[in-house]
Amino acid sequence: MQKKIDVVKTLLEALPFIQEYVGEIVVIKYGGAAQTKDELKQSFTRDIVLLHTLGIKVVVVHGGGKSIDKMLSALNISTEFVDGQRVTTKEAMRVVEMVLSGEINNEIVSMLNYHGAKAIGLDGKAINFIKATPKDNGTFGYTGDISSVDTDIIDKLLNEKLLPVIAPIASGDILGHPGFNINADIAAAQIAIALKAKKIIFMTDIVGVLDKNKNLLSTLTTDDISLLKENGTIVGGMIPKVDSCVDCVVNGVQKAHIIDGRVEHSILLELFTDDGVGTEVIR
Amino acid sequence: MQKKIDVVKTLLEALPFIQEYVGEIVVIKYGGAAQTKDELKQSFTRDIVLLHTLGIKVVVVHGGGKSIDKMLSALNISTEFVDGQRVTTKEAMRVVEMVLSGEINNEIVSMLNYHGAKAIGLDGKAINFIKATPKDNGTFGYTGDISSVDTDIIDKLLNEKLLPVIAPIASGDILGHPGFNINADIAAAQIAIALKAKKIIFMTDIVGVLDKNKNLLSTLTTDDISLLKENGTIVGGMIPKVDSCVDCVVNGVQKAHIIDGRVEHSILLELFTDDGVGTEVIR
Amino acid sequence: MQKKIDVVKTLLEALPFIQEYVGEIVVIKYGGAAQTKDELKQSFTRDIVLLHTLGIKVVVVHGGGKSIDKMLSALNISTEFVDGQRVTTKEAMRVVEMVLSGEINNEIVSMLNYHGAKAIGLDGKAINFIKATPKDNGTFGYTGDISSVDTDIIDKLLNEKLLPVIAPIASGDILGHPGFNINADIAAAQIAIALKAKKIIFMTDIVGVLDKNKNLLSTLTTDDISLLKENGTIVGGMIPKVDSCVDCVVNGVQKAHIIDGRVEHSILLELFTDDGVGTEVIR
Amino acid sequence: MQKKIDVVKTLLEALPFIQEYVGEIVVIKYGGAAQTKDELKQSFTRDIVLLHTLGIKVVVVHGGGKSIDKMLSALNISTEFVDGQRVTTKEAMRVVEMVLSGEINNEIVSMLNYHGAKAIGLDGKAINFIKATPKDNGTFGYTGDISSVDTDIIDKLLNEKLLPVIAPIASGDILGHPGFNINADIAAAQIAIALKAKKIIFMTDIVGVLDKNKNLLSTLTTDDISLLKENGTIVGGMIPKVDSCVDCVVNGVQKAHIIDGRVEHSILLELFTDDGVGTEVIR
Amino acid sequence: MQKKIDVVKTLLEALPFIQEYVGEIVVIKYGGAAQTKDELKQSFTRDIVLLHTLGIKVVVVHGGGKSIDKMLSALNISTEFVDGQRVTTKEAMRVVEMVLSGEINNEIVSMLNYHGAKAIGLDGKAINFIKATPKDNGTFGYTGDISSVDTDIIDKLLNEKLLPVIAPIASGDILGHPGFNINADIAAAQIAIALKAKKIIFMTDIVGVLDKNKNLLSTLTTDDISLLKENGTIVGGMIPKVDSCVDCVVNGVQKAHIIDGRVEHSILLELFTDDGVGTEVIR
Amino acid sequence: MQKKIDVVKTLLEALPFIQEYVGEIVVIKYGGAAQTKDELKQSFTRDIVLLHTLGIKVVVVHGGGKSIDKMLSALNISTEFVDGQRVTTKEAMRVVEMVLSGEINNEIVSMLNYHGAKAIGLDGKAINFIKATPKDNGTFGYTGDISSVDTDIIDKLLNEKLLPVIAPIASGDILGHPGFNINADIAAAQIAIALKAKKIIFMTDIVGVLDKNKNLLSTLTTDDISLLKENGTIVGGMIPKVDSCVDCVVNGVQKAHIIDGRVEHSILLELFTDDGVGTEVIR
Repeated sequence: MQKKIDVVKTLLEALPFIQEYVGEIVVIKYGGAAQTKDELKQSFTRDIVLLHTLGIKVVVVHGGGKSIDKMLSALNISTEFVDGQRVTTKEAMRVVEMVLSGEINNEIVSMLNYHGAKAIGLDGKAINFIKATPKDNGTFGYTGDISSVDTDIIDKLLNEKLLPVIAPIASGDILGHPGFNINADIAAAQIAIALKAKKIIFMTDIVGVLDKNKNLLSTLTTDDISLLKENGTIVGGMIPKVDSCVDCVVNGVQKAHIIDGRVEHSILLELFTDDGVGTEVIR
Repeated sequence: MQKKIDVVKTLLEALPFIQEYVGEIVVIKYGGAAQTKDELKQSFTRDIVLLHTLGIKVVVVHGGGKSIDKMLSALNISTEFVDGQRVTTKEAMRVVEMVLSGEINNEIVSMLNYHGAKAIGLDGKAINFIKATPKDNGTFGYTGDISSVDTDIIDKLLNEKLLPVIAPIASGDILGHPGFNINADIAAAQIAIALKAKKIIFMTDIVGVLDKNKNLLSTLTTDDISLLKENGTIVGGMIPKVDSCVDCVVNGVQKAHIIDGRVEHSILLELFTDDGVGTEVIR
Repeated sequence: MQKKIDVVKTLLEALPFIQEYVGEIVVIKYGGAAQTKDELKQSFTRDIVLLHTLGIKVVVVHGGGKSIDKMLSALNISTEFVDGQRVTTKEAMRVVEMVLSGEINNEIVSMLNYHGAKAIGLDGKAINFIKATPKDNGTFGYTGDISSVDTDIIDKLLNEKLLPVIAPIASGDILGHPGFNINADIAAAQIAIALKAKKIIFMTDIVGVLDKNKNLLSTLTTDDISLLKENGTIVGGMIPKVDSCVDCVVNGVQKAHIIDGRVEHSILLELFTDDGVGTEVIR
Repeated sequence: MQKKIDVVKTLLEALPFIQEYVGEIVVIKYGGAAQTKDELKQSFTRDIVLLHTLGIKVVVVHGGGKSIDKMLSALNISTEFVDGQRVTTKEAMRVVEMVLSGEINNEIVSMLNYHGAKAIGLDGKAINFIKATPKDNGTFGYTGDISSVDTDIIDKLLNEKLLPVIAPIASGDILGHPGFNINADIAAAQIAIALKAKKIIFMTDIVGVLDKNKNLLSTLTTDDISLLKENGTIVGGMIPKVDSCVDCVVNGVQKAHIIDGRVEHSILLELFTDDGVGTEVIR
Repeated sequence: MQKKIDVVKTLLEALPFIQEYVGEIVVIKYGGAAQTKDELKQSFTRDIVLLHTLGIKVVVVHGGGKSIDKMLSALNISTEFVDGQRVTTKEAMRVVEMVLSGEINNEIVSMLNYHGAKAIGLDGKAINFIKATPKDNGTFGYTGDISSVDTDIIDKLLNEKLLPVIAPIASGDILGHPGFNINADIAAAQIAIALKAKKIIFMTDIVGVLDKNKNLLSTLTTDDISLLKENGTIVGGMIPKVDSCVDCVVNGVQKAHIIDGRVEHSILLELFTDDGVGTEVIR
Repeated sequence: MQKKIDVVKTLLEALPFIQEYVGEIVVIKYGGAAQTKDELKQSFTRDIVLLHTLGIKVVVVHGGGKSIDKMLSALNISTEFVDGQRVTTKEAMRVVEMVLSGEINNEIVSMLNYHGAKAIGLDGKAINFIKATPKDNGTFGYTGDISSVDTDIIDKLLNEKLLPVIAPIASGDILGHPGFNINADIAAAQIAIALKAKKIIFMTDIVGVLDKNKNLLSTLTTDDISLLKENGTIVGGMIPKVDSCVDCVVNGVQKAHIIDGRVEHSILLELFTDDGVGTEVIR
């Protein structure tokens, strides 16, 4: 009986958080370990289905994980690198879309629907609602920079209480163009901005933004971030993540979060417990 | 951190229960200790606000507690009894309505709104949606038997996502009629039937229906109940409660529950944990 | 036959007035003799039901009449006075709400519904849509000044073609606060302003605003009123009435009327005959 | 002042009648003196505008009066007669439509709109919603019997709160067919039946159905009418009128009225005074 | 088979034109030969029905053709002229409306409905949505200049997917006013402006605007037109036509077209082939 | 000019066909040569975009073409055969879904959107709206028989005027099940039946059903088909096609068509020309 009472108390502690988000748009960038380890997948799925059932308008944007590399290698498609970054060739682009949209997106949509959500997959290129141009004048082949996001289709699906799951591929300017491979963090940020989302959550494989003593920084303003970049606290792979966060909050998203996707149920922990997890970026 | 994870796991365990009730009508008869003790009031309020926030269509029907007696005595209005049952005189009826609607109903509505619900009080007589005739040919004065419930107003309020809280008073046939005092259990049952509710929950001051060895009977069919009444297991004050349950399930309500309102959060315990609490009556 | 023709001619004379108000919001402050004398109650009820049936969006705000005093005295609750004004003690406040909401409001709602309107009672405190702070730093106890009116609930009810009848009680800042007793004229004015009503009508026990020779002043601008107050024509109890009128027309209500509630059907006389009755205040 | 009070009392006496008809469909056959005398036209117009403003769904079907004859004679189009009934030649049919739709219908629509209704004219042939076949195998030329009424267009207009005014002309089976001249009483009856109207009112130039002593018969059942026809009380031109009434009430219209259009405001007299005017036919 | 393939190819060539106009308002001034010759009538009708079926919001404004003159002469109503322009007498005005609305408008509506559109006729005077004042201080009698167009009724009809066909008659300021005869080109232009139409098409009996060598000018800006009027290329009867076009495009209509109604299917030729027909006026 | 007129005449000839299908559901099985040859793809795309633009509710179900085989061979996944039919292994099933949904479906959706439709891809398994069980007790591995089609998601998309393009994959009973490969003809038929479509069109690589002399049979009833199967006229690969047609028309689809997808614009030829192409099956 005590256990049951604990259950119920917990539900009630979540109430103010639920009240805050019901009817609001929350964009979730899904990626990293959460996308590859079985228990983490399960935990992610159940988190999202819960949010959807509670009436929160969730939009998921996912990355590619390692399936793309495996398929490229199985098909003997070799990869060039420029300045240490992969170049997406036309041949590779075809595989990127096939795996992202036909395997990874379907798997996520399938898991969500199996657990009772009404999810639907969207390929930014096929639906033609994300448009892009070549990054750095084409240095990286079919890797693109987003030029526009048309939210019309997402609005229609949210209208019908469907849960959009988006593969970060964009269309080029002519029919038959192989499309563009888009960094999933950036795609999620641009979609959140276009949708005027209340919150964006980036699932990563790190604890959050750390100070020089490796302690977690729970809340950062955009000014804090400028400083931490200048003084060398935020470096390397963390820079594009925080930049996406800053981009979001500067452009109307209320809060951006970098959370540790390696922790089970990190999304619910962030949304439904007192001080959340990871690093929160505010304006 | 482990505590936070427990919190989240609990939320997820509640998911299938939430999925079952979102968009459905649940009628709750509020009364007994839950209506008089401060912590139980609080616990009731938060339970209902949670259900409302989750998108469950809750309708509350409340009784009078001891406030009516106190007010009658403060006003020196004496009470007759016939066959051990109180007779509602015209003078008393005026106080019944004033206290039920002007104090008790307001207090419940106020608590619910303060915690974030959108509750609205309804007096069955003033709104004129519950009609009654004198019980036992008037032996008990202005105590009545419901003759009809018109759900039009409740439907309109649920439409606007409002939470109706109903005082169990009914109107008579002419203007100026003092109205009828209605047993709150019966009022709740008739309202649940008229609304084609999915579930009705009676909050009581007992553990549930017990067998002869004082063990709780968790689930009873209408046939079980006939038997238990015949063999003297269900006796006394328990008979009208189970009769209301039977009336509901025979007339289209899916399940009726008798739960122990003395236990904090008994409503959530019933709705959101595996085998619930108290006694469940099914067809 | 001639009588019948007269009936019909009358209806037709009302047509332009009906055309002017169909679909518009009219707030009516109900009080005074109209609320205590039986024929006047009847006449008020039938007036309001007619307006409601014609498709005019009526909102009624009522005062307390003498029932509160009677109940306070029946319960031996004594009343203090400061500067000649009553102080609402906590004990009295409980009675104020009980009688206003549980008796007076119910009686009005009941009469309206009995005659075919779809009225619904609202307690500003329980619904939590009128908020107040203590008047004059608490000199008068739980007598309050309105700090905000949230029209969301009224809009929803008007949407469903329901007729809101409002008891002038406001909520305080914490749960369990006994609430505030609000002057009904001021409550009506604030509600009319918040609703952007087309017209507000104050039912009083006087003929209207009189000049020094006791002749009725039919129409007054806000400038006229300043002058009449300066030169001592408008004095005493009339001042708060005209101030409420001025407050309304300065804040977007088209016209405010002070009418003589002692005259049967004074509301219809005002709305549906050529030069109305009482005093009209315009900007 | 007394006059004003009388005005208001009258309005209130009309309330139950208004409550009965708000939102209901009432078909009015407009014709006879009411259509030719100036004061009667005015009185008719104001009656209809009042009904429309009150929210009653009025549909007007009008006849041709003497304008058609005048125009035929001005154009020197001669008229044949068969069995004492006029034959509508092709040449005459063109004039019938031109005058009915282009002059009479427009005049009615114009008067109604000028007084604040939102009326719109409909020509049964042009809109193609009334279809007919030749009466008595063509003996009377382009005089037709209605074969079908499609209410789709009327429903759409009532939806938009418009007031349809219908010229009783029907279409034939091929394009370019000159159409059919339809008896306006019959057209009104068929339209009332197709619309499932609550009431139909025939404006005539007689007092109503009289018994053999020339006393008005206020209420007749269909059985009464059979008897009165058999025993020769109802004869001549009255027969088609009562037959139309019977046709209506037998086919779902609640009541049919034959009223004296020579009396000003006879429609309001019928709808809004106690025992109405003329003869009422019920099932 | 080749024929069938040609059929289909043609449909596909029309696709971009259909995509451009679906859901948009197109006003068509119908007049001239297209209104008098049988094959041209047919061709016009089928064009309009096609546009309506495709989901284009067509509004037709028609002129009077020669029927009015014939009827005036048949009725021996003589016509005065001032400065070579006809003066509309009161007597003539009655005939103008009768023929325009009762014959011509009905014929158009009838043809459209027969071919499967849902057309409805509107008389600007009876509906009271076009208002006018006497042209040139009454020099031309009941010939008027439009003072306002209220699109409320048209919006309601387009809402219900009906096709409005408008007779260019306007109402005066008092009831019983015979109304005003309005130039149909000007009526069409004012209606297009009031409706914020995407396009207006004037059907005329000329090829289009010609240069001094009688070559068709396909596209003209408002500046071009100023020049061509100054240098005497656009003269005479062409001036009011191009002025109406300029009026439209200056006031928000995207394009105005002068097309040759003597050519079968000139409307579809304009809308659905590559460079259209006639002269297009743009801003 | 003559060419332009021909264009327009063609449009008009299509009008009755457009009128017949606007607002109706038409399911199209896309496959064969139409899916592999570039001009045929283009021709298909433009046909579908035209239908969608005209307001016809098109639902496309596609097959896999040769891309699946190529990918299986590129990945060195060998294929077993039983009774001459391919067995879908678990490994192959993964590739089937990846190619069908991630490449072929995307390509079709992309082409349609590029040409101005609002298409959206659906994977029957991920969306979980097509459910299946193993065919012939699993003899063919993950090749399945449809057990149910839930049209809820398609209804929602058609509601929002989106064009669903469906990959014929079905879900199994447990999460993580690789899903089932479904014959596209059968999937299309089951979807058409579940949607109560007006028409289904199967695009094939044959002329239609031929008689023994190789002449096309334009129209067949279900009885004709029984006979032709009995007498050996319909044999081999044609049998499942005609069986799907029969299944559709017997279960509420009005007409089923087998058309020659090798002919450009065969869909428009079927829908918009007089006697269509290929074989039509009716009940």
